[in-house]
Amino acid sequence: MSVSGYKGKLGEILESIGAEVGDEIEVLTGDGRRYVGYLMSRTEYAAEGLITLKLRNGYNVGVALDDRAVVRKVSKGRAPSFTREELPPVNPNLPRIALLGTGGTIASRVDYRTGAVRPAMTTEDLLSTVREVAEVANVESEVLFSVYSENMTSREWDAIGGAVHDRITKGYEGVVIAHGTDTMGYTAAALSFVLQRPPVPVVLVGAQRSSDRPSSDAATNLLGALSVAGKAPFAEVVVAMHAWHSDDVIAVHRGTRVVKLHTSSRDAFQSVNSRPIAYVKEGRVIVKAEKLNPRGAIGYSYQPGFDERVILLKFFPGMKGSVLQLLAERGYRGFVLEGTGLGHVASSWIPVIRQLTSDGAFIGMCSQCRYGRVNMNVYYNGRDLLAAGVTPLGDMLPEVAYVKLSWALHRTSDPDDLREIMLTALAGEIGERSMPLRTSWSDEPWA
Amino acid sequence: MSVSGYKGKLGEILESIGAEVGDEIEVLTGDGRRYVGYLMSRTEYAAEGLITLKLRNGYNVGVALDDRAVVRKVSKGRAPSFTREELPPVNPNLPRIALLGTGGTIASRVDYRTGAVRPAMTTEDLLSTVREVAEVANVESEVLFSVYSENMTSREWDAIGGAVHDRITKGYEGVVIAHGTDTMGYTAAALSFVLQRPPVPVVLVGAQRSSDRPSSDAATNLLGALSVAGKAPFAEVVVAMHAWHSDDVIAVHRGTRVVKLHTSSRDAFQSVNSRPIAYVKEGRVIVKAEKLNPRGAIGYSYQPGFDERVILLKFFPGMKGSVLQLLAERGYRGFVLEGTGLGHVASSWIPVIRQLTSDGAFIGMCSQCRYGRVNMNVYYNGRDLLAAGVTPLGDMLPEVAYVKLSWALHRTSDPDDLREIMLTALAGEIGERSMPLRTSWSDEPWA
Repeated sequence: MSVSGYKGKLGEILESIGAEVGDEIEVLTGDGRRYVGYLMSRTEYAAEGLITLKLRNGYNVGVALDDRAVVRKVSKGRAPSFTREELPPVNPNLPRIALLGTGGTIASRVDYRTGAVRPAMTTEDLLSTVREVAEVANVESEVLFSVYSENMTSREWDAIGGAVHDRITKGYEGVVIAHGTDTMGYTAAALSFVLQRPPVPVVLVGAQRSSDRPSSDAATNLLGALSVAGKAPFAEVVVAMHAWHSDDVIAVHRGTRVVKLHTSSRDAFQSVNSRPIAYVKEGRVIVKAEKLNPRGAIGYSYQPGFDERVILLKFFPGMKGSVLQLLAERGYRGFVLEGTGLGHVASSWIPVIRQLTSDGAFIGMCSQCRYGRVNMNVYYNGRDLLAAGVTPLGDMLPEVAYVKLSWALHRTSDPDDLREIMLTALAGEIGERSMPLRTSWSDEPWA
Repeated sequence: MSVSGYKGKLGEILESIGAEVGDEIEVLTGDGRRYVGYLMSRTEYAAEGLITLKLRNGYNVGVALDDRAVVRKVSKGRAPSFTREELPPVNPNLPRIALLGTGGTIASRVDYRTGAVRPAMTTEDLLSTVREVAEVANVESEVLFSVYSENMTSREWDAIGGAVHDRITKGYEGVVIAHGTDTMGYTAAALSFVLQRPPVPVVLVGAQRSSDRPSSDAATNLLGALSVAGKAPFAEVVVAMHAWHSDDVIAVHRGTRVVKLHTSSRDAFQSVNSRPIAYVKEGRVIVKAEKLNPRGAIGYSYQPGFDERVILLKFFPGMKGSVLQLLAERGYRGFVLEGTGLGHVASSWIPVIRQLTSDGAFIGMCSQCRYGRVNMNVYYNGRDLLAAGVTPLGDMLPEVAYVKLSWALHRTSDPDDLREIMLTALAGEIGERSMPLRTSWSDEPWA
């Protein structure tokens, strides 16, 4: 091995102390900060002059070496990852977790020797990614498929749901799904309706930054997801991703209440109209919500299947009702509207809405405001839309309403039955309590 | 006058101290809080047992009287509003502000004598709403029209723009537009492109709760908007609405950076991918941004006109590219896509996108994440979409991109010119600096 990738002064420093990739290194910076971690090879993503260390919690940091920095080799040690030959035996004291790969940034690993990124979804690959995995669970993984998550459709939702159902019936103590972040919220909602009252946790997890980058969230998110799958007292479909306050806290979001709220930041995933149901900190699962489906719940029901004749439409000023008409003519039977404010679209839409609903189409109303609930009784226009047959969907997220309507329309085409399904909370997708705008409620919500 | 509306024990207490609507009242609650304000008549919205007071800053509070509460009449005093006969003369030391009414919750007032809500957009009505208006500006108002804001189209945007242009040319020192909140962000964006480098501030303002309700934000928002119009050193198109930290702080949002982010809370309006450019506190305008268009700027340009052949489409998993095709066949020439994450739609859309862009249609990409910027160079799918002719729109909000594209398509149908207009920041709608997710950055951002 060599200190591959580090150039110039940084390369000289590392060479002078005989540091090699995988060695445990201590850095004391001129301004008094101390870092101890495994030396990673430099990648094209890291800025010049940054040394990349993998901390023991799986978090990668990029440390800038100033003139007064001191670098010391702590131990020759082993690499932060296992080699294949080193893989630990099954630990009978740890839970047996199924890990399903579907693609995305998290489903890749860096070879510490070559710096190359490659798929990492065999058990060996996964375990070799970070040693701590073997301390959390006995993981058995399988790559279901590998697609960009924006290419997923209800077919992939059903493929994932079927695989999870299989693992549940085989007695796994939890299931983790590695997923691209772009549409992870939609898939989480889909699985929430397909897998009702599951007996074990079903945890989706992704990464905003690939595992070879400084400040990658891949390993910490994965460890957090495995902790939830293996230890959580609840059996809910959830998304486990980096929380915003600290580098080592994972937020656990209900599958029907989570959105990707930022294109790139590590804390992109947020609960909306709800709070995270739990956090993971230092391997501990801290439950924050009540009335959760308990681990070992009875009454599990597997309900696959979606109908494609559903569309989500965001209203905007000047948008014409003829768009709705046009889509209905092409066979769409279910419409989720992202109206303005408390749930409004232009009054000019009322005749076409009345016609479509009397023809048996379902038209549900959510808000484009992102936070809050629709209330169509406040203004005359809202009341007129109600009279035309629009169903207000409370505080359900529009993305979740789309998924649920697609799922419901597979089960019934009767308008009254559809309405009843849509207005019945099946997986925490509708709440009674109004939530405020703020995405944070205290400095340490997990405390 | 009588203490109209208050019943039961509350009515008895008020009667016992001879309190009448409009009197100044002091309430000391059992738990030690003190309120002084003008007694308002009870309305159907207020909960039983609540006494509604209008504080001097225009803010309405509903105070619950517990068993130990003490109620005292401070002064017979005048009503919090003017009667017509009392209207103050023009004050030559105050700025001359035009107030344009377009509808919405703010464009109504409560008659303190009858409790009824009615339109309040004549100067007399406005001044009689709250006395403090006369201390801020000489206001001349006109009702342009009165519509629910979800019914607005580019026709109304042009009507408002034309009226503002008229007031600018007539030498008013600022213009305030009272607007329904549902689509106020869209109109603010529209005016930002129609009124370029205006010489005076153009301020949109609304209310989340009508002025007769406890905790109404109507009067404080209006006073804040008038302060900006009359005193701000900048001449930008902005939205002035309740900030979240305090009852009496107004946030001033750039017209191209503001969204209604909650269906019902008073702090619903938030700057996204940007911070508020100013705050108003106790009548003072506290500027937070640099490089603003200054009051008295030269180079003002009035650019009305929008093209209706533009559509905003939010992508979701399973959404078919044929929807795009269908709309293009119906004559749509401009498409703003709310893609997932960094700006993605399904790879299966690439052929139809390539065809539409080669036919001269404009297809711009924003993100449905709400926060952050698109970056289509990270993943292969993004690069393929770029190659198919999609234009990534940086951190522009999708609603603003829709408005801007409609405005740009009125000016040119040449794809290269369109692209150049869309990628040139004309009114602060594109930023270079990436902003984090959090909606708050400090406890007192106006300090």
